[in-house]
Amino acid sequence: MAADLGIEVVTLAADWRRGVDYGALRAALADDAAHALKAVCAVHNETSTGVTLDLPRIRALLDETKHPALFLVDTISSLGSLDYRHDEWGIDAAVGGSQKGLMLPVGFGFTAVSEKGLAAHEKSTLPKHYFGWTTMLQRRHKSFIGTVPIALFYGLQESLRLIEEEGLDAIIARHARLAEAVRRCVRHWSGNNGPQLYCLSPERVSDSVTSILLPDGYDAEKLRRRVATMNVALGAGLARLNGKVFRIGHLGDLNEPMILGTLAATEIGLRLEGIPHAPGGVDAAMAYLAEMAA
Amino acid sequence: MAADLGIEVVTLAADWRRGVDYGALRAALADDAAHALKAVCAVHNETSTGVTLDLPRIRALLDETKHPALFLVDTISSLGSLDYRHDEWGIDAAVGGSQKGLMLPVGFGFTAVSEKGLAAHEKSTLPKHYFGWTTMLQRRHKSFIGTVPIALFYGLQESLRLIEEEGLDAIIARHARLAEAVRRCVRHWSGNNGPQLYCLSPERVSDSVTSILLPDGYDAEKLRRRVATMNVALGAGLARLNGKVFRIGHLGDLNEPMILGTLAATEIGLRLEGIPHAPGGVDAAMAYLAEMAA
Amino acid sequence: MAADLGIEVVTLAADWRRGVDYGALRAALADDAAHALKAVCAVHNETSTGVTLDLPRIRALLDETKHPALFLVDTISSLGSLDYRHDEWGIDAAVGGSQKGLMLPVGFGFTAVSEKGLAAHEKSTLPKHYFGWTTMLQRRHKSFIGTVPIALFYGLQESLRLIEEEGLDAIIARHARLAEAVRRCVRHWSGNNGPQLYCLSPERVSDSVTSILLPDGYDAEKLRRRVATMNVALGAGLARLNGKVFRIGHLGDLNEPMILGTLAATEIGLRLEGIPHAPGGVDAAMAYLAEMAA
Amino acid sequence: MAADLGIEVVTLAADWRRGVDYGALRAALADDAAHALKAVCAVHNETSTGVTLDLPRIRALLDETKHPALFLVDTISSLGSLDYRHDEWGIDAAVGGSQKGLMLPVGFGFTAVSEKGLAAHEKSTLPKHYFGWTTMLQRRHKSFIGTVPIALFYGLQESLRLIEEEGLDAIIARHARLAEAVRRCVRHWSGNNGPQLYCLSPERVSDSVTSILLPDGYDAEKLRRRVATMNVALGAGLARLNGKVFRIGHLGDLNEPMILGTLAATEIGLRLEGIPHAPGGVDAAMAYLAEMAA
Repeated sequence: MAADLGIEVVTLAADWRRGVDYGALRAALADDAAHALKAVCAVHNETSTGVTLDLPRIRALLDETKHPALFLVDTISSLGSLDYRHDEWGIDAAVGGSQKGLMLPVGFGFTAVSEKGLAAHEKSTLPKHYFGWTTMLQRRHKSFIGTVPIALFYGLQESLRLIEEEGLDAIIARHARLAEAVRRCVRHWSGNNGPQLYCLSPERVSDSVTSILLPDGYDAEKLRRRVATMNVALGAGLARLNGKVFRIGHLGDLNEPMILGTLAATEIGLRLEGIPHAPGGVDAAMAYLAEMAA
Repeated sequence: MAADLGIEVVTLAADWRRGVDYGALRAALADDAAHALKAVCAVHNETSTGVTLDLPRIRALLDETKHPALFLVDTISSLGSLDYRHDEWGIDAAVGGSQKGLMLPVGFGFTAVSEKGLAAHEKSTLPKHYFGWTTMLQRRHKSFIGTVPIALFYGLQESLRLIEEEGLDAIIARHARLAEAVRRCVRHWSGNNGPQLYCLSPERVSDSVTSILLPDGYDAEKLRRRVATMNVALGAGLARLNGKVFRIGHLGDLNEPMILGTLAATEIGLRLEGIPHAPGGVDAAMAYLAEMAA
Repeated sequence: MAADLGIEVVTLAADWRRGVDYGALRAALADDAAHALKAVCAVHNETSTGVTLDLPRIRALLDETKHPALFLVDTISSLGSLDYRHDEWGIDAAVGGSQKGLMLPVGFGFTAVSEKGLAAHEKSTLPKHYFGWTTMLQRRHKSFIGTVPIALFYGLQESLRLIEEEGLDAIIARHARLAEAVRRCVRHWSGNNGPQLYCLSPERVSDSVTSILLPDGYDAEKLRRRVATMNVALGAGLARLNGKVFRIGHLGDLNEPMILGTLAATEIGLRLEGIPHAPGGVDAAMAYLAEMAA
Repeated sequence: MAADLGIEVVTLAADWRRGVDYGALRAALADDAAHALKAVCAVHNETSTGVTLDLPRIRALLDETKHPALFLVDTISSLGSLDYRHDEWGIDAAVGGSQKGLMLPVGFGFTAVSEKGLAAHEKSTLPKHYFGWTTMLQRRHKSFIGTVPIALFYGLQESLRLIEEEGLDAIIARHARLAEAVRRCVRHWSGNNGPQLYCLSPERVSDSVTSILLPDGYDAEKLRRRVATMNVALGAGLARLNGKVFRIGHLGDLNEPMILGTLAATEIGLRLEGIPHAPGGVDAAMAYLAEMAA
């Protein structure tokens, strides 16, 4: 579709298990003296691999290279779970959704845009609808671009109330704590040539979802079906990771017994499917959580 | 209140951790040649201690001693969770509730009565209202003894649908399996002079609730408050067991990750409160559940 | 049951369509020099007839005759809809429920008691449970007389919030306004020997429910079934009024279109059932509501 | 946007109060010997004006003129309320939504496509996403074009159950009956130079929404605000009809008392706002509904 619209998309090659190389990104920006690159697009939290990007660092690369490209960010699986600072990090446009950290059903897409982003938008001739900010700002408080999903607004009111009640800092800390418990468990399992964290960069592991790579020759889909018999829905590996990877989502309305029950059912599943692993992963997670609570 | 109504209640002395002695009950019935005892009252599942009674055995004692006493049973915390056979076991009157195995809010009390029970009821001069079966049978399909709790009837329709879908036998087996997982965990914890099952009779342990006795000198209420910080609500010890005992309810809409998450949070709580226990209880529960699923 | 407990109930004879005669009540109190009467029991709003009692007037009769009887009141179908002042009116004990003016499902019964009521209670030897205030006050904040209906407490929190938001005075005025609209409609219908208000005392008509008497020879149950085909559930006549009377409840979460739709469906029902009436009742209700809103 | 994509949109001029002229449409098709027109786009039920189109007649015009244009239909405010026969009427592509006749929240858009429509789609080079049928058919039962709105699927299951329970024919008849009651009411009001039906073609009036034109010099928005104080949300006039027209939606989960209550509140509003009208519109609606039920 991009090609149909006359847009050329340049994808920076990256090892999926490590995410994009910041040096390569810097080089690409520095090499683009003609400023042919109009925007740098980044996924804050890649939901299929459990790899995050350091958005302030990308902002710094743009600044260092004095590159005027817009900085566009997908925050769908990070908004409300990971730290995100739209203005401070100089993001020009971001998209988010209702169904992850905001704990709502699918239905809302959110966008946020900077002054620079709005200025670019006004000159843009690409077809647009959900991103039709100029139109929407003219209609402000008057009408919508479609029938209003009223029920979701009531839901949003409640989820924002919950977020204010717990406090955004506390929420981000809770996500970090429960995610680290998951990683302690997986690292323990990996002992006997068992499953391992898909993400190989310790500073890029995601606090909202963990992707776990099975040892060669074992089928993640079989494991998922087994664990589903205990009412735990593990996430599937997406695209080329299907069958190799399973994922544990740990964002939104989540607490210690929920994540420990999930890990315990998964460890039972590993045992029943005969997948090599070092038993005791749940104990490792419990030990970490006890230490954090002490 | 019973005394006000001219009723004498004879309580068969029993060790709370073992439940009533069937021999003593047999003797009491055999000794009552004048049939002064009008009814034998039994609690199928004692919710405070986690001790069950063998109702068919009590029925057999009544039959063997040819005692005509009515057999009255409280099934509140067993109905829909443990095997209960009103007609087959010759129960004359039973009470149940909506809020346990039927997975509904508090609100419904159910009664079931035998022909013999109804006949006794017709001659009874005690004040009664919820047990006013004669009145109710006359009103059959016409009116109620109060305003009808319509919402609960819709809920009941749904919980009965869920029960039929899973199958009552499967539900009873599930309760037995999850309860045994809890007991394996507690027995493991008890290793280092840790918490132990309050019920000392292995054949009387309850599949709907487990009472757990802390070692002397430790406060069950402190443990409960600690575990509550992880969003797990352990049951309090009731009456004279308060502070000494905590309880894990495992009935109704419950599955493996829910009970394992509960046990894991409780084991973290034991650690944080410095209560002696052998770590690894959750592993013992997981091993049992894996074995059962294999 | 009262007789079983040694209580003698003296019922003051009354015309059901007018309610008790205050003069007769005064006489009964004045005649009881020995103070054999221990309590005066009154129903604030009689749900079967739509007749209310003037509680301050009854209080005045007790005061004038210097009679020490307790003053016990049923507020079930008035609480939250009609003006009720427990302390100011010197009520000694009152019962209320969740399912009427509080807009909740059936499930809660409320009691309120005066110091005098509590003192009488402490000396009382009657069997009691829901009225066991002495026991309950000892347990204060510790336990309940049964399993707590948690969902209803959340509901109560919300219904009290709604009541505070609208304001109790505004709620009482709304009930009076919508009830008068119903009465204007019924009085109009009564023109051609049609249905009439069951309550014949204009100062006693109820603002929470209106009982409507059909002309002789017409079956209120047939009318109710007809109107039910339009999804309107009229109330049945109770006990000896069954078939003669139908009732329109107008309390709780109710507004103009809801009550006007109800009246319109009922007027259609009258027409379809060939019950004599002056058409135009809904217009009379609308005219009144327009006048009130002007 | 259409122009950006190289599409020329030809709008057939029409009187908004009568809808498009079928003769003019026939002429346009007949004149297009070169088949430059690729598609005829029709709105089954125009939600702003309350004017419907006769889709079988448009199909017949295409057939008579042997014109190969695709026939594309918007059924958003008709699906599940008005008779719609995708295959029988030879529609090539249709869009519908969850939030009208299907009685669900906003969230689902439905599309239906003919073989001819699919064939055209495969050759189309326009950018597309929600209409990306080729992609979706390849993914069949495998994945979606986004995160699945699971809650809406449960809702759809229930609304389809309700539709089957009532029967689609009965639902269409109910919409016709309640809509005609609204029109009888409005025609009565129009007597004294009062509000009138916006749609002037009796055979095109909509059974899902009625647009009502106020007499000159009266503000429909003031009326809407007044009626809103009685908890009735009338629809606003859209675009150039704003302030002149108000709308009554009468589709989905609707019955006699709901629509009569709405009409009664609106008639009160007309009175309070001093808008000329012949009182008695609600009576006219009631008379019609009584006649239909007889």
